[in-house]
Amino acid sequence: MEAEIITIGDELLIGQTVDTNSAYLGQKLGSIGISISRKTAIRDNESAILQAIAESQSRCNILIVTGGLGPTKDDITKKTLCKYFSCGYRRDDSVIEHLEKIFAQRGRQLLDINLVQADLPEACVTLHNAVGTAPGMWFHQNNKILISLPGVPVEVYHLIEERVLPKLRETLELPIVEHRTLVTLQKAESLLSKDLEEFEKALPKSLSLAYLPNFNMVKLRLSQKANSTAELIIDEYFEKLIATIHNDVFCLGDKDPATHLSEYLIQEGITFTSAESCTGGFIANRLMQTPGISSVFPGSIVCYSNDVKISELGVDPAIITEFGAVSEPCAVAMSKGVRAKFNTQLSIATTGIAGPDGGSKEKPVGLVYIAVSTETQTLCKKFRLFGNREQIIQRSSNAAIWMVKQVLTIPL
Amino acid sequence: MEAEIITIGDELLIGQTVDTNSAYLGQKLGSIGISISRKTAIRDNESAILQAIAESQSRCNILIVTGGLGPTKDDITKKTLCKYFSCGYRRDDSVIEHLEKIFAQRGRQLLDINLVQADLPEACVTLHNAVGTAPGMWFHQNNKILISLPGVPVEVYHLIEERVLPKLRETLELPIVEHRTLVTLQKAESLLSKDLEEFEKALPKSLSLAYLPNFNMVKLRLSQKANSTAELIIDEYFEKLIATIHNDVFCLGDKDPATHLSEYLIQEGITFTSAESCTGGFIANRLMQTPGISSVFPGSIVCYSNDVKISELGVDPAIITEFGAVSEPCAVAMSKGVRAKFNTQLSIATTGIAGPDGGSKEKPVGLVYIAVSTETQTLCKKFRLFGNREQIIQRSSNAAIWMVKQVLTIPL
Repeated sequence: MEAEIITIGDELLIGQTVDTNSAYLGQKLGSIGISISRKTAIRDNESAILQAIAESQSRCNILIVTGGLGPTKDDITKKTLCKYFSCGYRRDDSVIEHLEKIFAQRGRQLLDINLVQADLPEACVTLHNAVGTAPGMWFHQNNKILISLPGVPVEVYHLIEERVLPKLRETLELPIVEHRTLVTLQKAESLLSKDLEEFEKALPKSLSLAYLPNFNMVKLRLSQKANSTAELIIDEYFEKLIATIHNDVFCLGDKDPATHLSEYLIQEGITFTSAESCTGGFIANRLMQTPGISSVFPGSIVCYSNDVKISELGVDPAIITEFGAVSEPCAVAMSKGVRAKFNTQLSIATTGIAGPDGGSKEKPVGLVYIAVSTETQTLCKKFRLFGNREQIIQRSSNAAIWMVKQVLTIPL
Repeated sequence: MEAEIITIGDELLIGQTVDTNSAYLGQKLGSIGISISRKTAIRDNESAILQAIAESQSRCNILIVTGGLGPTKDDITKKTLCKYFSCGYRRDDSVIEHLEKIFAQRGRQLLDINLVQADLPEACVTLHNAVGTAPGMWFHQNNKILISLPGVPVEVYHLIEERVLPKLRETLELPIVEHRTLVTLQKAESLLSKDLEEFEKALPKSLSLAYLPNFNMVKLRLSQKANSTAELIIDEYFEKLIATIHNDVFCLGDKDPATHLSEYLIQEGITFTSAESCTGGFIANRLMQTPGISSVFPGSIVCYSNDVKISELGVDPAIITEFGAVSEPCAVAMSKGVRAKFNTQLSIATTGIAGPDGGSKEKPVGLVYIAVSTETQTLCKKFRLFGNREQIIQRSSNAAIWMVKQVLTIPL
């Protein structure tokens, strides 16, 4: 079963907003066996919207439209949907009630401009939006389903999970599409591809493998489409895939490796901290996004200046004089110092040159030392990372996460 | 002048990759007067690619295709472009030379699979990619321009800046499109819209105003399209816009408010630090993304545990016993403690409940205290933020940045 997505909004085309909804919709619909065959972004413009909807409905039976439902004047989706379905408006009392509640909760005044959100096309069923002010809309005519959602990500997530997926499952007979994903770190796509040449050649037709590179991480996604669960052989091939590149696999599932590491640390009760110079707290920040992290993460230090490295982490000033702050001895001393300071079992330290300034012939932009320290061992590695400041920081954080697995035995 | 974008890749449709290239392309083309009228994401599939290209070329004269140029098997763009333009391959020696250089630099082995990247459709002009392995391609036939770029963001940025924009400027006569953007913090879209009702009514037809909300930030973008610079009246109206909502404007330009704040601190030499509990270093991390920040930012502390708040920041244990860690007195003590510790002029402290766990009736998820401290004053505010963990952290960081402006006079 296929679906298309249309996102409405000049802000997406002009590039002031990055569209994260579409990726989410692709994942969620994929999980119930609906694959997105096309995604179209168009303007806040009646004729563009009408044309794109008509084109999409000529190609496939499910269409999700996001955006263009806010309270302000540049939103015209609803008016256009009335035109498309040749219907007028109805005022939905359940939406009014909800608006009154939500505005009271947020301590904000309910304006006339907000009440307009309760006026919906007569042709639609209301999809109650518990987390926002604009309801979703479900149109089902001539065997075609059109779902209109607001553009705010948190509202899209809520409406998809609570309203749209259950209603699609109820309405349609869906085929089976299964994906299995794994994450590799610190190995180039072309080298992985070489190792997997035989594996890919031997793949049955119903299966496919995709490489999804991002910084020094490559996700591998194996997919199978089947008519019945009896046809599913994906797990067998996923096992073969894992076995073929076993040493390069960091974790299984479509997962941020930082989340995998945090979850492991929380589960095992392994306390950790970090002392970050060139990554400026980015590693700690990735790890602390996992709920419950406070049980193993007392805190951490960002130490840009040499003074802070010395006073807070106890780095010997002689190390900095002799080797410089961007050096293996300094990274090692930082990792030991911060672990002692916060009394944790594990620590990560980074020192390097993220750029764009501060590089030299001997110590160029992209040179990063990372140290990982536990009670029994300290591992330090030198990296030459490429890209701009943001990319060097991203790559450093992936490298650090990968290094922790060289020191601790973290299951897949 | 209008252009369309086609992004190729199952990973975009299935939702494993968020498409950040399109937003970038929208901005950059917009800056030279080319507006994106449509953006289509399609599969790694020959017939889908051929169909989408033909449709796009029937609608407009400029098409940018991204993705599908990597070294692995799931990339089929190049083959399809040969088919579309009815041509064969040519091997480009300049690309071979570049590949040899880049692989030697990265210390990686050049494989046959990589050399394939030098085989290009005969119909294209090569766009040299200095930062990656896949060159861009420029096709110009029957008054239609088709530009094919790899999907890796850093390579797209490079190719657009260095190759595509100059070549488009050279080839086309472009109209003028101007945008002026400003950023507001901590004011709801509907309230701004109410304040701007008269302003919007009085806007001449060539001008338009868009609201771009994101967390507790709303960007306002005023646009004008004109045939000559003489017709441009956008600056006059932008001044009126600023004057109308003066107290709510944080900064001018399409700018991250964190960048605006960092740049101000760097320029004025105002040293700062942070002590972050519930935001886990996210605020420092946003601020440190600005190059040169190390001159005013010695370092900072993430202090999840009460122990760290006491031992590192000198928070009186009695404060935590009496008021709890999530309280105004604790936030104030943290902000003073961290400022003293790092000897800075400014500090930001956060303590709150980001969730999803840890909330109670008295102290629910979303309750956050933020304190900003300087040598002469300390401001502390209580916030009730909504959303999930990530959103509460995002909103807290915007609130903290906004608070700094309540304490320091930061120009727009």
